[in-house]
This record gives sequence, structure tokens and C-alpha cells, in this order.
Amino acid sequence: MKETTDELMDATYAALCKHGYASLRMQDIADESSKSKATLHYYYDSKQDLLYALLDYLQESFADRIETLEGDTAADQLVALIETYLTPMNEDSMQEFRTALLEIKAQCPYDEQFRTELDDFDRILHDRFQSILEAGQETGVFRDDFDPDRTADFIVTILNGVQTRHVAVGHPLEQTRETLETYITEHLLAPDRAEVSLE
Amino acid sequence: MKETTDELMDATYAALCKHGYASLRMQDIADESSKSKATLHYYYDSKQDLLYALLDYLQESFADRIETLEGDTAADQLVALIETYLTPMNEDSMQEFRTALLEIKAQCPYDEQFRTELDDFDRILHDRFQSILEAGQETGVFRDDFDPDRTADFIVTILNGVQTRHVAVGHPLEQTRETLETYITEHLLAPDRAEVSLE
Repeated sequence: MKETTDELMDATYAALCKHGYASLRMQDIADESSKSKATLHYYYDSKQDLLYALLDYLQESFADRIETLEGDTAADQLVALIETYLTPMNEDSMQEFRTALLEIKAQCPYDEQFRTELDDFDRILHDRFQSILEAGQETGVFRDDFDPDRTADFIVTILNGVQTRHVAVGHPLEQTRETLETYITEHLLAPDRAEVSLE
Repeated sequence: MKETTDELMDATYAALCKHGYASLRMQDIADESSKSKATLHYYYDSKQDLLYALLDYLQESFADRIETLEGDTAADQLVALIETYLTPMNEDSMQEFRTALLEIKAQCPYDEQFRTELDDFDRILHDRFQSILEAGQETGVFRDDFDPDRTADFIVTILNGVQTRHVAVGHPLEQTRETLETYITEHLLAPDRAEVSLE
């Protein structure tokens, strides 16, 4: 079953990126896998169920990826976490995935399960930022005059804005990276620390 | 014609808020106005054309609203601009409008005209923030060690994030207001200035 799940999740991801959320059909997902539409229906009732499963799957994979972050200091780990967020699972379809995810976010007020999935994702991201900020304050990498909870919340808001503006008006991610570097260097790092650099 | 335009724009706005972008039909817009669907088609080819016209209309109205902002100092005007952005034209359907707007943002990669409309809106907002920040630096209300263009860009990104997270996971606007107050007070205001307060 594990193999089938992996295949169906890959197929759902690929079909979502190719067709977008609004026009996605079960058949599109079947077309991306070796399974028939009937087989898909054996495992999942609807396209919606496949999408819930996909969000679960991506969330677990994201949680795994951010559990251990590269970098010796909390500042490096902060940068690594931002980079992980800005770079989805499959780089080839990055832009398409961002667009589909924004479509799904806009569905949340109509779909309780989408909201629950994205709420979990939001919390995982926030908590990881908070733990890095706390660790960095303890080791003196970060200033001690900001609240790690509030600041983590602020960063998650900024990253949401980055994705939205990138999808909506094509705002360049490069410019955002520079702005985030400046924010971290000037407002979070302890005064004697070297500046950070996002790739 | 002005009266008809105003009526049709109000009807499009109301129908968009009620039905969301994806399931909106010409008939839904006619139902919100005194006109028949046939009359709507006389003025506009499609639902899409009505939505483009609505975005134009909202943009002009927004540009008017932010041309003159309440407040004696640049700091007060900065706060007034943020509040204007966070409070759409019609307060009763605020939440529905934010959701519909996020749906439209997610359509931008598929729809050149939506992108153009939202790009204009993005630029108007950015430029207004920049002019306030510049004026505030000249009068000594703001610190002189930040770049007004970059900082305006950062604030627009943050506001996009605020709207997206609010729609997607119900992140409280109250908390965002506090975080923005802290950001402005600690990082933008000149050191001897009193802190700002968002309503």
C-alpha cells in the first residue's frame, strides 16, 4: 500500500500542478499514474479526498525536511528554514504548485478540511521558527529584546505575503530574499554577528 | 451611463462576495441589480469583463481614498494607509471580499488581464507607502537609515501575507495590527517619537 500511496500522491501533485485546483478531475490524476480512474476510486472517494491526502502527505514530508536543518548556528538554521519553505518538493513545477496552493488557500473559507490541513501546516512552520529563535536567543546569536512567538508569527505572515505576491503579480523572489536578509540582519541578529545571506 | 455603471459595479461586487469567484455567473450579477441578464450582456460581453471593470473601479476608488489620508504626521498617515487597506469599501462583506480577491490573485497566472489589474493596484499601494516614508524621513518623523522603496515593498508584502493568512487559516487581524505597530515603532520611527497605534 505504501508504494501505491506514494504513486498516487505523486500523480495528484503532478495533476494539480498541471491543471490547477479549479479544473482538476479524477481522470487527470489517473492520467498521471499507472492506475485506472476506477482503481483511484477504490482508494479515494473523490478528487477532494485525494487532495486532503496530498496535503497530509506534503505536510509530513515538510515536517521531516525541517526537523533537521543545515547550519551550525540558529541564524544559519533560520535561513535554511526560509529556503526550505521557498523551495517546494519538486523544483520543476514550483511555480505551478505555488499557484495551486494559493487556489486551495482561497477555498479554505468554504472547506473545513482544507482549513484544518493548512492550519496544521501554518502551526508547524510557526513553531519551528519559534524554536530556532528561542535557541538563538539562548546562545546569544539573536538579540534578546524580541518575543520569539510574535516574531515567528511575523515571519510566517511575511512568507505568506511573499508567495501570494509572487503568484499574483510576479513579484521577484530574489528581491524578497534581500529584504528578508536585511530584516534578519538588522532586527534579529545580535549586534556583533555577521550578516546572514539567503542563497 | 455613470449611474448604470455604478449600479452594475455594486451588483458585481455583491454577487462576487456572495458566490465567490469560481461559481459566479452573469445571472448572479443580474440578480443583484435592477437590470436583466440581457441588459448586462449589452454592456459587458462576459462575467470576466464585468470583473475586470470591477477591479478597475475598485482601484480608482482605492486610489481616491488614499490620495488624502488623515493624520498630521507621516507616521499617522502610514497608519491610516494600512487601516484603509485592511478595511475594504463595504464593511459588511469584508470577509467575503477578501476571499474572492484571493481567488482572483490565484487566477493571475492564467489571466493576463487580472494580473495587469492587480499589478497596477500593487504599484499604487507601494508608491503611496514610499511617498509617505520619504516625506517622514524629510521631516524627521522616520529614521533616515532605511530605503523608502525597499521598505514600502516590504510593507506591501506583509499586507499581502496578512490577507492571505486571514483568509486561509483565520489568523486574527488584531494580532497582525499589534505586530505591525511594533515593527513601525521599533524599526521605522525616529528614536524620539512616540509609538504608533493601529485602531
